[in-house]
Amino acid sequence: MQKMTDVSTGRSAGKFPANFVLRGDIAYSKSPEELSCREGAFLVCREGVCGGVFPRLPAEYSPFPLYDYRGKLIIPGLTDLHIHASQFGFRGLGMDMELLDWLEKRAFPEEAKFHDGGYARRAYGLFVEALRRGPGARFCVFATIHTEATLILQDLLEESGLVSMTGKLSMDRNCPEALREKSAAGALKNAEEWLDLSEKRNYRNTRPILTPRFIPSCSDELLYSLGKLAQDRGLPVQSHLSENRREIAWVRELCPGASHYAGAYRDFGLFGGEAPAIMAHCVWPEDEELALIKERGVFIAHCPQSNANVASGIAPVRRLLNLGIAVGLGTDVAGGIHSSIFRAMGDAIQASKLRKVLGPAAEGSPSGGAEEDYRPLGLEEAFWMGSAGGGALFNAGSFEEGREFDALVLDDGDLAAPFPLSVRERLERAVYLSEDRHIIGKWVRGRPLFMIMPENRFENTGE
Amino acid sequence: MQKMTDVSTGRSAGKFPANFVLRGDIAYSKSPEELSCREGAFLVCREGVCGGVFPRLPAEYSPFPLYDYRGKLIIPGLTDLHIHASQFGFRGLGMDMELLDWLEKRAFPEEAKFHDGGYARRAYGLFVEALRRGPGARFCVFATIHTEATLILQDLLEESGLVSMTGKLSMDRNCPEALREKSAAGALKNAEEWLDLSEKRNYRNTRPILTPRFIPSCSDELLYSLGKLAQDRGLPVQSHLSENRREIAWVRELCPGASHYAGAYRDFGLFGGEAPAIMAHCVWPEDEELALIKERGVFIAHCPQSNANVASGIAPVRRLLNLGIAVGLGTDVAGGIHSSIFRAMGDAIQASKLRKVLGPAAEGSPSGGAEEDYRPLGLEEAFWMGSAGGGALFNAGSFEEGREFDALVLDDGDLAAPFPLSVRERLERAVYLSEDRHIIGKWVRGRPLFMIMPENRFENTGE
Repeated sequence: MQKMTDVSTGRSAGKFPANFVLRGDIAYSKSPEELSCREGAFLVCREGVCGGVFPRLPAEYSPFPLYDYRGKLIIPGLTDLHIHASQFGFRGLGMDMELLDWLEKRAFPEEAKFHDGGYARRAYGLFVEALRRGPGARFCVFATIHTEATLILQDLLEESGLVSMTGKLSMDRNCPEALREKSAAGALKNAEEWLDLSEKRNYRNTRPILTPRFIPSCSDELLYSLGKLAQDRGLPVQSHLSENRREIAWVRELCPGASHYAGAYRDFGLFGGEAPAIMAHCVWPEDEELALIKERGVFIAHCPQSNANVASGIAPVRRLLNLGIAVGLGTDVAGGIHSSIFRAMGDAIQASKLRKVLGPAAEGSPSGGAEEDYRPLGLEEAFWMGSAGGGALFNAGSFEEGREFDALVLDDGDLAAPFPLSVRERLERAVYLSEDRHIIGKWVRGRPLFMIMPENRFENTGE
Repeated sequence: MQKMTDVSTGRSAGKFPANFVLRGDIAYSKSPEELSCREGAFLVCREGVCGGVFPRLPAEYSPFPLYDYRGKLIIPGLTDLHIHASQFGFRGLGMDMELLDWLEKRAFPEEAKFHDGGYARRAYGLFVEALRRGPGARFCVFATIHTEATLILQDLLEESGLVSMTGKLSMDRNCPEALREKSAAGALKNAEEWLDLSEKRNYRNTRPILTPRFIPSCSDELLYSLGKLAQDRGLPVQSHLSENRREIAWVRELCPGASHYAGAYRDFGLFGGEAPAIMAHCVWPEDEELALIKERGVFIAHCPQSNANVASGIAPVRRLLNLGIAVGLGTDVAGGIHSSIFRAMGDAIQASKLRKVLGPAAEGSPSGGAEEDYRPLGLEEAFWMGSAGGGALFNAGSFEEGREFDALVLDDGDLAAPFPLSVRERLERAVYLSEDRHIIGKWVRGRPLFMIMPENRFENTGE
């Protein structure tokens, strides 16, 4: 691969073959405990679906065009289960503010700007372009309450080639006037109109998702009616769950009849079952809540960076994993600063180490204090959460046969070491040290978003 | 600045003028609480020393060549008060291991390789090149026990144009055979020989520093003799202090006569006074220790990332600042993964937020539990620590008149926002989001290490 030429964006990807083979140093998760790492292996894509990874290319695939990235790292595209598109513009600003200041001075005023379609186009344009260049392939995205702006975001995401569940926010209480839908009935009507308009656009990759912000910002009536809508139309739902202790106490006041926070969502019909539900945070779950999460197959978006920035605490990820709960990672921009799930993987490991020595958090915690028997997360588990774990929501994020084909090629040559590195070591280093510029090829559902073409792309030695 | 040409490395910097002016959007710390941020201002360098920052260029400087970086961010070069050069090669590897595993499987075997000068040249070459491209200008560097390898490192640092205090490690107990100096007398002789050889090289920018690894790995005899050497020759000293509770208990056993950990260093003559001392960590200081640190003017290297990775806890930085202790930042590679002090600034803010909610740590802590009245660090304080605070050791790190002139020009244009950003906001965003590639110019002691030349470099309008 002496000479490389820069080619192909999503827009010109029509010419790209539906069946092809990538060759390189391939790493992916087989389970939370097991990474598969193979040097110089072959990864098959058949009509947008993974055909498997092979040390030698089976004869049946020898007619497929082969793109030879030997020496480069090939991994699945990553999944971000929780990101606020409208907050991307002020990521990394005011991060030393207290939460309420930050909401009042940064988050709410910025969200209010999205009533203006022109502003939305500019701001969401920056957002989508950053995601396109980064390691993520799949996203669960919060927009704002504005229908037009949300459709602009969906158009941009669709055009990018990325896959997402994207939701217009619903909220009708406990938020600034400019962001409040005027009644539960009005908010429901807004959601239905937005769904109808979304449907007419015939998106391939952009699925609408119901997005009540969280219980404190939605009236009971709105939550019930959204729950009914979700059940009637089989729609996925995303929201926030048990982020911090004050919020939990508030929800207890607002829903005195509910057994707990998760139970309140369930009572409203918003907690999984037929269609999936994705809940961000889960820093302070009760045992019964965890049982319900598990029973309903609800996805948890673990957002370690945001949980630190907002001083929420450290989620008990080890417990979630032990219970077999579907847990993935979220960047939670702009509570989180970085829009890369690589960063979330490293942060998840680091946070789990602090949990071991500091305990889950102290603020009134029944289990406050160090948890010496708490085993911190390993690379395997962190990488699994950010790829196959979260990706399971989309049947993606892994190179297991039958998953949808999302792949990244990383040229990690300048992350140099004075000694040879194994594929697993290169993966670990890429998690901590790679930047977007290291990504030289990115495919989502088998289509290239961008790629640097290896010179020998049509050479298929079959070996 | 339509066209830019890439020019000038440290090696060809002989041609660069000794007196010059940079123009751009200038930010630097005046105190831990105060940032100076000025758009389109002029920064004067006179013979390697800051001549001040001016909104309009005083007439006396109008003969100086002016390099016009308007629209770019200009900040002081940063200072890393604690980094292990020999551990750079395995940064970001094995970060999910427990500490003892990590030392045994990664740190010690790697350090042992530096008995080989060829290996040292390769490994230290990667290290120094990474520092050269990054935002740091000044460094306190730990090498290994090997004299030849340490001199190779010093040569490379000197050649790079960076300024450092670099030390051959001393240790004669409680470490693997391959890294143990055979006796206290032998270790002292090694240190003296190394100092003599260093002196003969007439380094301009590379000062030797005595480096007993920490009390547990040095016998009393060795510590006494190094303390005497430090006093006799007026040499600076660096080591580790109060990183974690087990280590502190161990030091108490090893030095039963000392009032505390810092007191033990003082008793050995290794705790500041005439020549400076730099101590890494200080996660668990006692009140009396803090008083001694303050009294002796000892610099503390706060290493938030490493303290999390190694599960040490969260240092009480707010208390250090309130006491007026000289505190700077350290990356502590490879306990820390990232060799950029920008990352350490962001981590310091984030860690201080977690300290507020989680408390200092639980393991037997008298003050365990949340510290609701603990005020997290702000951008001002974090930036000050990583620039002027740590830089004070070298009389650098700020653009106050009289400090040595270290400057970075950052082209932060692609860290875009959908709304205009103030200089302070751009600084905050650069702390969190900039990468080495954003640095388009770097000067240390007035000499350019590299720079992209603005087209209008000789145009001096004076205005």
